[in-house]
This record gives sequence, structure tokens and C-alpha cells, in this order.
Amino acid sequence: MPFAAPADEHTAETGTALSPKFDADGLVTAIVTDADKGDVLMVAHMNAGALARTIETRQGWFWSRSRRKLWRKGEDSGNTLAVVDLRIDCDQDAVLIKARIAGDGVACHTGYRSCFYRSVPLGKAPTPELALVFDKAMPKK
Amino acid sequence: MPFAAPADEHTAETGTALSPKFDADGLVTAIVTDADKGDVLMVAHMNAGALARTIETRQGWFWSRSRRKLWRKGEDSGNTLAVVDLRIDCDQDAVLIKARIAGDGVACHTGYRSCFYRSVPLGKAPTPELALVFDKAMPKK
Repeated sequence: MPFAAPADEHTAETGTALSPKFDADGLVTAIVTDADKGDVLMVAHMNAGALARTIETRQGWFWSRSRRKLWRKGEDSGNTLAVVDLRIDCDQDAVLIKARIAGDGVACHTGYRSCFYRSVPLGKAPTPELALVFDKAMPKK
Repeated sequence: MPFAAPADEHTAETGTALSPKFDADGLVTAIVTDADKGDVLMVAHMNAGALARTIETRQGWFWSRSRRKLWRKGEDSGNTLAVVDLRIDCDQDAVLIKARIAGDGVACHTGYRSCFYRSVPLGKAPTPELALVFDKAMPKK
């Protein structure tokens, strides 16, 4: 494991050691934002190998829970991630990536720029009939 | 359950029904960004109850995995979240919240504005000796 050993809460929050708190499946949450525009593009997961490769290569590597394998974002689509900044959160169970997307700038496999292309109407208790609202302004290829 | 029943992948991605894909612990990931500045403030988790309350009340409710209870962000600190927009991602296992923080505008319990106050140096294979870099420009109370 190329990281520091798990630390107590205070040390994890206040120290300079990278001691990721992987969950029971060995994963941390990874949030990807656009380095220039700042919007949130996608959420994925990283195991120790994906995190180490991302740090070393500055490319976005993740762990696919469904396919049970490491994947480099964009290896099929061409929408690779050039990582500009990678941060860890207070308790070290999530990372925040600022990146530039190559190719046509689309992060979501559905073709939308971001995976978050639908809003939930607010202000009323939800029911199974609630209707999501598509963001018509979001670029889609 | 005040949501639509779980849907197949295609329907979940292309439809207007809110059918959250809760994990084995009954949770989805929730990312909170500042509605005005756009920066990512924190990551937390929501169970069905927290998601329903957030939708209805426009306040940020979450599930604490450590304390095993619902909590309203800011109930102790005063840094409540006024939710402006709530989105679900393509496969409906993560939500993105745009919110305004009340009080002194601090989202992290450590006192930093954001939980992501430390960067990981990039471009070399990580080792246990790697040293995180604190963001000295981040507001802290």
C-alpha cells in the first residue's frame, strides 16, 4: 500500500499524511469537477490502485464496481481526464479532482457534459409520481 | 418509500422517475456545492428519509454512518444549508446539491469552508511519506 497507515480521526484531519479511509469494499468516493468552469461532472470510486495511478500519471483512473476492474476514464470514449488538482477531504474517505476533459468535453457516458443532467423539484414531499426535470441547457453530444 | 421503484439501467438514465439506487447500506452519495461560487464544500450520505426531507424542506438532511442517525446539517453549528437545486446523476446513486450556507459560511466541522482543504502532490508514485499541502487561501474560522 503506497499510502500512510490508517490514522486516528484527529491525525487524519489535521496532518499531512495521506492515509485514505477506504470503505469495506476498499473504495473512496471520487468527485470530478471541471478545472476551468468548476462544475461537477461525475462521481466515481477509487481503490488504492486507482488512486495511486491517478496521483502518479495525472490521468483519471477509477474502480468499476460493476465490471470489477480498474479503468482509465476515456479509454474508450477519448474523454480522458487531465488532472490539475487532487484533494482529500477531512476524514480522508473522499477525493476531489479538478480536471480538463479531452475529446469533446463530455464526461457522462449518456452523452451529457455532466452526469447531473436532471433536477428534482423541491418544496413538496416526494411521491413515486415526482417528475425529474431535464436541464435543457446542458451540452449533449 | 416515497420514490419510484428501482428501474433498469436504461430507464433510470433516460426517464423522469426518481428511483434512487441506494447501496447495500441504503445510502446514496450527496455532494454539496456553494450555489453562488460553485465550489465543492462537502460529501455526505443520504438514506431515503434524508433525501425525502431534503426535497420537502429544502434544508440539507443527511444520514450519519458513525452515529447511525439522521442529522440536519447545521443543527449544532448554525451552518444550515438552504438548498437551491438538487440533481440526481445518470444511474441515480448520487445527488448534487447547490446550497447557500447560513451562519459563518463554513461547511466543514474542522472550521474550514470546505472539507477539501488539502491537496495531494501529483506526478510521482505515492509513498507513505507523501506530504499533503494545506490550502492556505481557504477561509477558516
